Amino acid sequence: MHRYRSHTCAQLRKADVGQSVRLSGWVHRVRDHGGLLFIDLRDHYGLTQIVADPDSPAFKAAETVRGEWVIRVDGEVKARTEEAVNPNLQTGDIEVFAQEIEVLSAAKELPLPVFGEPDYPEDIRLKYRFLDLRRETLHKNIVQRTRIIAEMRRRMGEAGFTEFSTPILTASSPEGARDFLVPSRIHPGTFYALPQAPQQYKQLIMVSGFDRYFQIAPCFRDEDPRADRLPGEFYQLDLEMSFVEQDEVLATMEPVMRGVFETFADGKPVTQKFPRIAYDEAMRKYGSDKPDLRNPIEMQEVSEHYRGSGFKVFANILANDPKAEVWAIPARTGGSRAFCDRMNSWAQGEGQPGLGYIFWRKEGDKIEGAGPVAKNIGEERTEAIRQQLGLSEGDAAFFVAGDPKKFVAFAGAARTRAGEELNLVDRDRFELCWIVDFPFYEWNEDEKRIDFGHNPFSMPQGGIDALNGSDPLSIKAFQYDMVCNGFEIASGGIRNHLPETMVKAFEIVGLDRQTVEERFGGLYRAFQYGAPPHGGMAAGVDRVVMLLVGAKNLREITMFPMNQQAYDLLMNAPSEATAQQLRELSLRVAAVKKEG
Amino acid sequence: MHRYRSHTCAQLRKADVGQSVRLSGWVHRVRDHGGLLFIDLRDHYGLTQIVADPDSPAFKAAETVRGEWVIRVDGEVKARTEEAVNPNLQTGDIEVFAQEIEVLSAAKELPLPVFGEPDYPEDIRLKYRFLDLRRETLHKNIVQRTRIIAEMRRRMGEAGFTEFSTPILTASSPEGARDFLVPSRIHPGTFYALPQAPQQYKQLIMVSGFDRYFQIAPCFRDEDPRADRLPGEFYQLDLEMSFVEQDEVLATMEPVMRGVFETFADGKPVTQKFPRIAYDEAMRKYGSDKPDLRNPIEMQEVSEHYRGSGFKVFANILANDPKAEVWAIPARTGGSRAFCDRMNSWAQGEGQPGLGYIFWRKEGDKIEGAGPVAKNIGEERTEAIRQQLGLSEGDAAFFVAGDPKKFVAFAGAARTRAGEELNLVDRDRFELCWIVDFPFYEWNEDEKRIDFGHNPFSMPQGGIDALNGSDPLSIKAFQYDMVCNGFEIASGGIRNHLPETMVKAFEIVGLDRQTVEERFGGLYRAFQYGAPPHGGMAAGVDRVVMLLVGAKNLREITMFPMNQQAYDLLMNAPSEATAQQLRELSLRVAAVKKEG
Repeated sequence: MHRYRSHTCAQLRKADVGQSVRLSGWVHRVRDHGGLLFIDLRDHYGLTQIVADPDSPAFKAAETVRGEWVIRVDGEVKARTEEAVNPNLQTGDIEVFAQEIEVLSAAKELPLPVFGEPDYPEDIRLKYRFLDLRRETLHKNIVQRTRIIAEMRRRMGEAGFTEFSTPILTASSPEGARDFLVPSRIHPGTFYALPQAPQQYKQLIMVSGFDRYFQIAPCFRDEDPRADRLPGEFYQLDLEMSFVEQDEVLATMEPVMRGVFETFADGKPVTQKFPRIAYDEAMRKYGSDKPDLRNPIEMQEVSEHYRGSGFKVFANILANDPKAEVWAIPARTGGSRAFCDRMNSWAQGEGQPGLGYIFWRKEGDKIEGAGPVAKNIGEERTEAIRQQLGLSEGDAAFFVAGDPKKFVAFAGAARTRAGEELNLVDRDRFELCWIVDFPFYEWNEDEKRIDFGHNPFSMPQGGIDALNGSDPLSIKAFQYDMVCNGFEIASGGIRNHLPETMVKAFEIVGLDRQTVEERFGGLYRAFQYGAPPHGGMAAGVDRVVMLLVGAKNLREITMFPMNQQAYDLLMNAPSEATAQQLRELSLRVAAVKKEG
Repeated sequence: MHRYRSHTCAQLRKADVGQSVRLSGWVHRVRDHGGLLFIDLRDHYGLTQIVADPDSPAFKAAETVRGEWVIRVDGEVKARTEEAVNPNLQTGDIEVFAQEIEVLSAAKELPLPVFGEPDYPEDIRLKYRFLDLRRETLHKNIVQRTRIIAEMRRRMGEAGFTEFSTPILTASSPEGARDFLVPSRIHPGTFYALPQAPQQYKQLIMVSGFDRYFQIAPCFRDEDPRADRLPGEFYQLDLEMSFVEQDEVLATMEPVMRGVFETFADGKPVTQKFPRIAYDEAMRKYGSDKPDLRNPIEMQEVSEHYRGSGFKVFANILANDPKAEVWAIPARTGGSRAFCDRMNSWAQGEGQPGLGYIFWRKEGDKIEGAGPVAKNIGEERTEAIRQQLGLSEGDAAFFVAGDPKKFVAFAGAARTRAGEELNLVDRDRFELCWIVDFPFYEWNEDEKRIDFGHNPFSMPQGGIDALNGSDPLSIKAFQYDMVCNGFEIASGGIRNHLPETMVKAFEIVGLDRQTVEERFGGLYRAFQYGAPPHGGMAAGVDRVVMLLVGAKNLREITMFPMNQQAYDLLMNAPSEATAQQLRELSLRVAAVKKEG
């Protein structure tokens, strides 16, 4: 017989009744029912109920075992009585009567309970992560994470992609975030960098003549603690394709991602055909380039109804600034003064002067707009607004006025707020879309200069002619995001593979040819020797997993995360280097100011 | 029509004749045959012959293109004449008559030829890796590498393993090699380390209640340049299992690895049932714990035939040292004075006094031993040796004498040398075996103390009783290697999951409990809270790929390797950090001594 087990703890069924079996696992829980001892024995696969009665030679041992001890049990499978059958347990039809129990490993008193999973302070959970990971929800999340990644791999393979690993000890990347550096011992005084993303390498893979690359790629950014990103490393489904235009990348990746979502959506509906929404349209309709399309609210411009109206605040804004507009956020079922006031207070809490609103109610046979705005602009304009927005009694609309560039983020937040407060958002679905036509450049107000909008490696729409001829701020990029339920889950672009176009694109943000050569030498050099047109994208693995398992925190889907202070409590990292290590690396630690 | 291609360059067949097609790719070669221009167009998938005749509107463009330009070709598929059919090419039945050629990207004069693949200086190849990777052999190797890894993944999944990624920014590992360090910005003066292997994490995964883990794991060791290891990073197929004994790990991984070899062996035979050879036996038979079993030579002890014999050198060694032995290296077909002298000279070149030998020839009806040794020990002993070794006329045997611990490595080298020189080694096969029962401890002669033999985390055979009772140097470990054709391709063990046994094991090498707690805190702590018996192994991905594609150099199977001086010529890494980066990391570069 196997030294440790004949079956896993999820395997035994009614058909096994009468068999002598051997199980090993953790003691999940011990209960004493009138002299009979019941042990829930747990392993990676499931749970089996062990029974020790006082006549059993195993009883003495059973009395000593405690939660999280690892034991081996030999015993006989018996059917449970009908009342005792547990339909929620795979092995719920049977129990094992213990004849022998061997303690394989005892456990000290637990700093963290495994059974029952009560809330527990995060630092204890991270220090004793090996206990935390035994808890049902986290264990399930981690397994689900690996299944999701395996499914991504499988579907990428089916779509004709080949997985290549790119170097982890490499050069500083121009991704914009801060690099982690690795001192070189062999070349004293110099440093490798960990990749922020394999962007340059994946483009080099295309220039090297490979066609469809992907990788579940570890990426590293030395950022200050942020709630939505773990310190240190994260994973991307990174991919690139040669001889493609934007449409083909989208058409290739849409079924892959839809398939991954459908496989793990647990029956929730997933968008079948992802709408493609231009960046400008997304900003106008949803106030965001990562709109949550589960929220049915679409904003509309209603400037005309306010121009020259009796609502002087808006009328003056429109009169004084040719760029000014008024946008409406229609809110079905929001038509009560209480709700409108609540929204108004919320807006003030967000630092806004307030949030204009109209709500509609039935007065006799007529639908009538109510509230101060309606009073000021009069019945006719109020009705015109209602008609445009397609609203009815019991509905409301909120209004923001000014330069859309400045209020758009707030308008988007108000849309989100209204949708959530009114329960218009159907949480049990995955709404996916593409955002396309991002601006190639944007205006950097702080430094009063033109900057790249997103990714300097993207191809501008219209190519070098557009760069030479147009207002830079009007140029769109072949650049796209995939968005799900309000989160950007992937981002990509068609790359600029033409060195002269690349030089011109950088010139417009004030970087000359020499800077391009210095900062992107490998890639720039490669483009001189026959580069195919290419493009791709990268999807955030962690974010996709969070959405699919419904986790709110990255630490709920990561096996061994650091804490928010970038400290690994389990392994005690980072730690001081020895004098010999520093000497070998030709480094000295500068006098360190005490933190906090 | 697709902007770039209707087919890949490997797709067109006779059935496509008459079709209008569009292809894109690199100009592999241009030939001018009496006014007709032939362009071999290459992409990731294959090669198609393009023809431009002087009447074609594409002829002018065809005249301008040069090697490695990227072009798009529109044209018509025509059948080749019978003489022109190329059976070595997938598309060898057809050619495409160009009607239009568009240059997608030109190439400057090439620093490195792609066509023909002549030898080229390595530094040029690494600097222009994107050109080097287009060359047929390297391109094929890299694709094969990814296929081998995908096959490993597939088979591990089938064997019930789940892939988990472990952290890359972590704590210093106790693997024995030098860590790469990563300075922490948030915790000034401290450092993360890159993992030398995920050893502690994979054991923690088992303690966390997962059952069968694997990972294609990046590993990092800051070693001085070595021919058989790339500087920086390398990959392991890393795995661990719970509730197993040694036999089960071997029985689980043998079919996985055999399957991987068979899939890519290209018809070469692969060992069906891996012999399990004890370490002591491997050393005695092959003089190595990584024997090349394609070499049929097995050494034997022949001390008795020399004890008190007329060959005084050996007789005295045996008389003066009770540990001394004489080993024979039988060499079939090596029975000529010329060969024996050549072996003797080789041995002297290795720093040995020489290599005793006997060779056998026919004298009349009798087989007679010849050479100085045979003369000294006489006919009877010579014949007894021949009988023991099972040799015949035309064969030879070589002899080494002394303390086997000291001569064993040389004896093994002589075995290898004889086998290769005599062409006894069948190069076209993969001979796999397990080496088991490694010594748990070994004697460190330099420091005159006991050291761990292999892996301090292994379980000693006999457990804590053996540690308490036996001569430490006689204790074996549950530790095993997988060997192929003379290379260690995997290594593993059953782990010591019992904290008290762990403390005792370290005590014997002079490390106290506190040191264990400090150095392996995460793991040591975890073992206190219910640890399952577990074990596993790690296979060297790079080495397996090298064996399967027949590469001699790691750079032939790695996409973007550094050079032997740990410098990345393509990306120019490592490089100096900016003053701001150093300030943020609280680091100063110490005065650097010039190298060389």
